[in-house]
Amino acid sequence: MNVFDLQTFLQQFFDHVDLVGDGDVAITGPARIEQASKGNVTFVANEKYSKYISTTKASLLIVSRQMPVDQYSDRLTFLKVKDPYTAFVFILKKFAAPRRLASPGIAPTAVVGSNVSMGSNVSIGDYAVIGDGCTIGDNAIIAPHCVLMDGVSLGDGCMLFPHVVCYDAVRIGNRVTLHSGVVIGADGFGFAPQSDGSYIKIPQMGIVEIGDDVEVGANTTIDRATMGSTVVEHGAKIDNLVQIGHNCRIGNDTVIASQTGVSGSVSIGSQCMIGGQVGMAGHLSLADHTQVAAKAGITKSFTRPGQVLRGYPAQTMKEQLRQEVLIRNLDRMKTRLKELEAEFESIRNGENPSLSL
Amino acid sequence: MNVFDLQTFLQQFFDHVDLVGDGDVAITGPARIEQASKGNVTFVANEKYSKYISTTKASLLIVSRQMPVDQYSDRLTFLKVKDPYTAFVFILKKFAAPRRLASPGIAPTAVVGSNVSMGSNVSIGDYAVIGDGCTIGDNAIIAPHCVLMDGVSLGDGCMLFPHVVCYDAVRIGNRVTLHSGVVIGADGFGFAPQSDGSYIKIPQMGIVEIGDDVEVGANTTIDRATMGSTVVEHGAKIDNLVQIGHNCRIGNDTVIASQTGVSGSVSIGSQCMIGGQVGMAGHLSLADHTQVAAKAGITKSFTRPGQVLRGYPAQTMKEQLRQEVLIRNLDRMKTRLKELEAEFESIRNGENPSLSL
Amino acid sequence: MNVFDLQTFLQQFFDHVDLVGDGDVAITGPARIEQASKGNVTFVANEKYSKYISTTKASLLIVSRQMPVDQYSDRLTFLKVKDPYTAFVFILKKFAAPRRLASPGIAPTAVVGSNVSMGSNVSIGDYAVIGDGCTIGDNAIIAPHCVLMDGVSLGDGCMLFPHVVCYDAVRIGNRVTLHSGVVIGADGFGFAPQSDGSYIKIPQMGIVEIGDDVEVGANTTIDRATMGSTVVEHGAKIDNLVQIGHNCRIGNDTVIASQTGVSGSVSIGSQCMIGGQVGMAGHLSLADHTQVAAKAGITKSFTRPGQVLRGYPAQTMKEQLRQEVLIRNLDRMKTRLKELEAEFESIRNGENPSLSL
Repeated sequence: MNVFDLQTFLQQFFDHVDLVGDGDVAITGPARIEQASKGNVTFVANEKYSKYISTTKASLLIVSRQMPVDQYSDRLTFLKVKDPYTAFVFILKKFAAPRRLASPGIAPTAVVGSNVSMGSNVSIGDYAVIGDGCTIGDNAIIAPHCVLMDGVSLGDGCMLFPHVVCYDAVRIGNRVTLHSGVVIGADGFGFAPQSDGSYIKIPQMGIVEIGDDVEVGANTTIDRATMGSTVVEHGAKIDNLVQIGHNCRIGNDTVIASQTGVSGSVSIGSQCMIGGQVGMAGHLSLADHTQVAAKAGITKSFTRPGQVLRGYPAQTMKEQLRQEVLIRNLDRMKTRLKELEAEFESIRNGENPSLSL
Repeated sequence: MNVFDLQTFLQQFFDHVDLVGDGDVAITGPARIEQASKGNVTFVANEKYSKYISTTKASLLIVSRQMPVDQYSDRLTFLKVKDPYTAFVFILKKFAAPRRLASPGIAPTAVVGSNVSMGSNVSIGDYAVIGDGCTIGDNAIIAPHCVLMDGVSLGDGCMLFPHVVCYDAVRIGNRVTLHSGVVIGADGFGFAPQSDGSYIKIPQMGIVEIGDDVEVGANTTIDRATMGSTVVEHGAKIDNLVQIGHNCRIGNDTVIASQTGVSGSVSIGSQCMIGGQVGMAGHLSLADHTQVAAKAGITKSFTRPGQVLRGYPAQTMKEQLRQEVLIRNLDRMKTRLKELEAEFESIRNGENPSLSL
Repeated sequence: MNVFDLQTFLQQFFDHVDLVGDGDVAITGPARIEQASKGNVTFVANEKYSKYISTTKASLLIVSRQMPVDQYSDRLTFLKVKDPYTAFVFILKKFAAPRRLASPGIAPTAVVGSNVSMGSNVSIGDYAVIGDGCTIGDNAIIAPHCVLMDGVSLGDGCMLFPHVVCYDAVRIGNRVTLHSGVVIGADGFGFAPQSDGSYIKIPQMGIVEIGDDVEVGANTTIDRATMGSTVVEHGAKIDNLVQIGHNCRIGNDTVIASQTGVSGSVSIGSQCMIGGQVGMAGHLSLADHTQVAAKAGITKSFTRPGQVLRGYPAQTMKEQLRQEVLIRNLDRMKTRLKELEAEFESIRNGENPSLSL
């Protein structure tokens, strides 16, 4: 493959893909600009990486249309596009080696229950267990050791990595990716306290509904609702080791980073960005486009869209940073207070010259 | 089933179950009051939900004996009990569809080791692996893909969801529920530092003992002791993604919410309530009935029973909230200090009219 | 086995192993000093445990060479060594019962792909699935239900507990221990935001490289790099439920406690000690020998070796503790400020006797 081929490839996604330099250069694969060698394609989307242009050994750079590059065009080739970062992602996809989660067809060692509705071109790996009454969409790939309990429905083009578990009656949309160790639909954490201090379990009779194009990271857990549904809307991206409690709603295209915990009945809006290790108390809601900094503890609802939250108890970034500065300057405040007290003492003792009349 | 049937059913658990309204109304299942429709039974245990009574489409409401309902009895039926919440939990159990973790009997694909003592009416799912010398109690249900290493003992009526792992010699009581991805008895985190900066592993030779009626959430890990036992006492309820370190003791009927981490050799008393994302340093102890707010970091022991803790380093709720208020008011303090300094300046310059004699 | 045997055993590791007391005493196994009974061997490495010497029922104590013990030698036997703690670890290893992860050889139910290079004396347990083109080192033990996707390489003497997943092309060194539920090489969390608020997935084309003698705790996740490698260097010890993001580097002999999260492209130096529930923002670096207290939130790089960090945002232990004291004394400061204001008021009103001339 050469630069001309990649130009043609990118023209599927961008109106203008301008070539600067030699289009015949052979391209063998992508690399990071500081590590690239001859034959690699790389990119510059961010000012602070442009310093590498003069030294990179890459053969092709994807850059923005504004970037001046003629000074390098004798030794480097460039493709200029509106969004070089996204363009490079498409190039990564083009070079990505196909990954085999399971061989085509249904492995002889897979156990498939009764009344399973199987789409076309489904792959199910060794020792996968599919319960009774499940529905598997077209082109779904279920890796070895996945378990779908009874009545699970899986949309078209889903990818389940090894060791995914979906509890009974969970509903998964199309093109959903679940990584290894994900548990969807385990019982919500609900127990009724009794007068003797013990608890009786509240049956968790609801389900989990996951929308299209959702990705869920390794060992993340999403609990089923007590009644009704725990909902993850289309396009949401959830990282590893995240906990989503029962009856939550995660809005479309919301991103949640690793180890964040969402307590029961929380409603998170659309296109929010939640950092890592964030915690949210139960029964609260966050408006659309809310951003939460890592490690924040959300103790109340924030209903104005687009706020940026930080700290514990979480407040708006502006309030929180102001507070953090005040805390960092506490020792200065203490010193000033001490000085004032000393001067006062001197007044009391009539020693303050500035007061002698 | 109609209201009379449910009245009779609840009379097993409550001395008084008073019917107000039409007992012949057919009941098809439970629902949340705001989502209920004709045929549903729901409940009101909490003042703030009583507002829904006038609008709910449910056919039957479980309410407290004190609640005045006659105004609604023309269009709604009520059952009045001492504890409507618990009553509703029993109704949920009554309507809960039976969940199939594994088909009755031992799946032909399950691997059962030598010298396994098998109780009566045991169900073991596909591809489960039971090590040598294990003991499985009566009516235990082991879902597909569970692995019990050698010498594990499992009490009567246990339920292991798919993909549970119990390491060698772990002892599980009766009626214990372990959700998918739970790992019981992995090695505690113990390494002896050497002079060259490397570590040698300290063999973790102890076990884990889990009492009766314990429930452990998905992907939670409970480590085996170095010597002796890590103990989770009867009735404890542990949420998803919790870490219990080696040699810990979790008291009976203690509840631990998601993503909390308990370091090695910690002792938590009975009937404690631990919030989510709490962390505890090693070798400390919490008295019975201690409550810990979410995200707290416990750095020392709290030996007085019934304290409520919050913050990092954790202190009593009262101290912590007081501190949080002081911090929120820091800017006010700063302003007052500035004003005082200004006044002082004016004294020094003899400009303060209030001091001109 | 008697004391003489253990003396000889320890002489492999220490130049001097001095016997005080009766060497013929039979030793049946190790125990903790406060729980030991006749026949047990225990140790005292730490002053605060020496109080138990007078009351312990153990038959043999491993102590430091300096410790005066003659007063006890009539009823107890002692072995004196330079490092009693490490000596006791070796004794634990000596008494540790062999643990069976998998029976010798390759289980008939294991699925082994094509072009797998299998070392000598390998054990693979029931239902393990080994992908095409994998390399398994000599004496490796792979427990039941482990899945190695295509092209994984595993060094000599590795131990994989049940339910470990290694994604494609992951490279594991020699003598590496992976506990149950570990997921190595899942996709890093990388998505390119689009103008409509949705995301497109960035293919994660890199791998994970794990060095020799690494141990990884249960349900921990280590993500593959976007390009290049996520690296865990030799001797690192990682606890349960830890998240290591894509493109991170964890230095040799670094220890990371449970539930810590390391964001993408973080570089942690050698021989660092990271507490539990620590969070690190992306793209930062910690110098060698850095220590981080539990629950800290690292928001910037710390490039001076050997610093001790604490708090959020993390700062050096000294700064942080100073700040925590100031916060605890905030109410005192507030009171002093109030008093000053009151005195001022009195001046303004000319009531201050100390100023009446």
